[in-house]
Amino acid sequence: MKIMAVNAGSSSIKFQLLDMPSEKQITTGIVERIGSDNASFTIKFDGQKYQKTTSILNHGVGVSIILEALIEHGVLSSINEIEGVGHRVVQGGEVFKSSVVINDQVLQQIIDLGDMAPLHNPANATGIKAFREILPNVIQVAVFDTTFHQTMKEDAFLYGTPYEWYTKYGIRKYGFHGTSHQFVSERANELLGSNDTKLIVCHIGNGASLSAVKNGQCVDTSMGFTPLEGFPMGTRSGSIDPAITSYMEKKLNVSSDRITDILNKESGYLGISGISNDSRDLENAILEGNERARLALDVQAKQIVDYIGSYYVYMGGLDAICFTAGIGENSAILRKMIADRLGVLGVELDERMNQLRGENLISTANSKVKVYVIPTDEEVMIAREVMSLQK
Amino acid sequence: MKIMAVNAGSSSIKFQLLDMPSEKQITTGIVERIGSDNASFTIKFDGQKYQKTTSILNHGVGVSIILEALIEHGVLSSINEIEGVGHRVVQGGEVFKSSVVINDQVLQQIIDLGDMAPLHNPANATGIKAFREILPNVIQVAVFDTTFHQTMKEDAFLYGTPYEWYTKYGIRKYGFHGTSHQFVSERANELLGSNDTKLIVCHIGNGASLSAVKNGQCVDTSMGFTPLEGFPMGTRSGSIDPAITSYMEKKLNVSSDRITDILNKESGYLGISGISNDSRDLENAILEGNERARLALDVQAKQIVDYIGSYYVYMGGLDAICFTAGIGENSAILRKMIADRLGVLGVELDERMNQLRGENLISTANSKVKVYVIPTDEEVMIAREVMSLQK
Repeated sequence: MKIMAVNAGSSSIKFQLLDMPSEKQITTGIVERIGSDNASFTIKFDGQKYQKTTSILNHGVGVSIILEALIEHGVLSSINEIEGVGHRVVQGGEVFKSSVVINDQVLQQIIDLGDMAPLHNPANATGIKAFREILPNVIQVAVFDTTFHQTMKEDAFLYGTPYEWYTKYGIRKYGFHGTSHQFVSERANELLGSNDTKLIVCHIGNGASLSAVKNGQCVDTSMGFTPLEGFPMGTRSGSIDPAITSYMEKKLNVSSDRITDILNKESGYLGISGISNDSRDLENAILEGNERARLALDVQAKQIVDYIGSYYVYMGGLDAICFTAGIGENSAILRKMIADRLGVLGVELDERMNQLRGENLISTANSKVKVYVIPTDEEVMIAREVMSLQK
Repeated sequence: MKIMAVNAGSSSIKFQLLDMPSEKQITTGIVERIGSDNASFTIKFDGQKYQKTTSILNHGVGVSIILEALIEHGVLSSINEIEGVGHRVVQGGEVFKSSVVINDQVLQQIIDLGDMAPLHNPANATGIKAFREILPNVIQVAVFDTTFHQTMKEDAFLYGTPYEWYTKYGIRKYGFHGTSHQFVSERANELLGSNDTKLIVCHIGNGASLSAVKNGQCVDTSMGFTPLEGFPMGTRSGSIDPAITSYMEKKLNVSSDRITDILNKESGYLGISGISNDSRDLENAILEGNERARLALDVQAKQIVDYIGSYYVYMGGLDAICFTAGIGENSAILRKMIADRLGVLGVELDERMNQLRGENLISTANSKVKVYVIPTDEEVMIAREVMSLQK
């Protein structure tokens, strides 16, 4: 059975075609610069890559081009082979506690939730509309970044802000990257041979968040009302004193939106180091003695470890820490900086294993807490969700 | 030797006269509503209380009235008996790493730092000026809320914001309540019979902050650039997703200053419960089954414990937790809510001792971490600082 996992942005559609239940990737592809005359379309399969630049004026045209190309290259014999489409949606609010089959009402709710995620939900909805039009008889499922975190209790998701901000405006912690946190924590439980576990998943990419997963359920996470909260990321500041925003608005003589923009796009690795939002650039700069590059990683590692300490106490113990996503999977240096700060928890990194790529146990046999690298696969998770709703 | 400890607000002067080095309190008093025709003046000594309502048009008049009253009531035979005045100053920035004898330059620096603490430093400076004029030959010392935290390292005090925000605008974590954190941690070290300790001081009053104190030095604290950061307090929100401020600005159609105001004055206990900023009111409401009152304490306790977990890991261990300030010293309920969440650290509260007032060890003999209640005394700390600079 072939299932499509889709991640639609405002001017792009990323997709993966998967064979289920084998979970084998058949094709991946991306349409970029939708809305322009020189949009680009790329697909990869069987180690081959096809690329083409053409006019793609809207998401509907983008979806048509994807499907035509899959047939043209013999990946599909007909579009009827696709038996389900799963769409990544960023913000599910408190409305969606799990993935859901999309109908008109669900689509409208996704659009309505766009008020809280204006950069993402409207674009996700546009992608959904395009696929629904072209594949009207295929089940379409919305898989949210937030639902995995909906098991958090009030003490973890409420802020110290007026209660009416929560009831009237939805101000609370939602958490994001849920699909990844779920995928990695489920895989860790397989590796540990138990669901009765206390895990911390460190999803560290350009965007980054931690989650505390107890007995398979998320009990806390570092991102909040938006993906800005937490610890410093590639370009995001993470949490700061909330009084800083109005203070800096006056100092820089800019709008509060511009401050939020700086906190989202010019902070984190980029802001502290002044060099780059890419951890590889920082690691190279550190080797050349760049002090601010070291500082950027240090501040991030310190704050990540703060969350680990909090979650250890909140869950009442810790069986495993799992690193995933671009940096979590590939930066042996950052993993070591984090592990070195966790001595009191009995964490002991196996320096040799830490250098390897792919899924690995990277702690020593003596380590009181297991440390894993587990490559994330949000597309497989999306395809699984489609399967489970396809009855 | 008699030393005066002063805390001047924009329309008030609180003071204490202490006998040093015995550290005995001789008199306490307060002048309120300075600038009005019905200002009030209260002094207490020897179990007696004198109060008077009169016109006090400025801080200078307030200081004169204080000194005259002390002579009139025979507390002082002459103002020459006062051998030093210590002034509480909220923001010392990175300029002041310790308490300092006040001269013209220091006074100007305190005023300049008022940019970062507009509600406090200018008022503190006004009090200093008034005392300097009336007691020109007496040593005047500035004791800052921030200096105790100046030993924090960069990884703890830097935010993930652009580095220029730090170098140009001083955006970093400063921490507050330093005098209290220092007093309580020094007392805890006396009780433990060692300075080689790992302590967490929980200063919980209407304003509240935690500090991590390793070998007598502050290594981390929960308040930040301003006293708004941290966990929910009486009326303050503590930390929130920094994107919330601009979001709520639009929702409520108000200025960013108004949002900061709500976060400072209408949040925390008051905002979550909708009842009161006073923990005693909340505790009574909880007994009557009020769910939101319980929630207010729950959310605060959860976040306090998050900091404790972080500090435990950051310091690499924990010898003692010390509760202090209005709520920390008096709320057995909140202390129990916090201790109950610390099981994994081996914290065991002695329920009977937890009910007592005053300085006490409130953990059991088996507890892996000692838990103390240690009443704070910022005035004694200020007087000690004056003594140590008076040579």
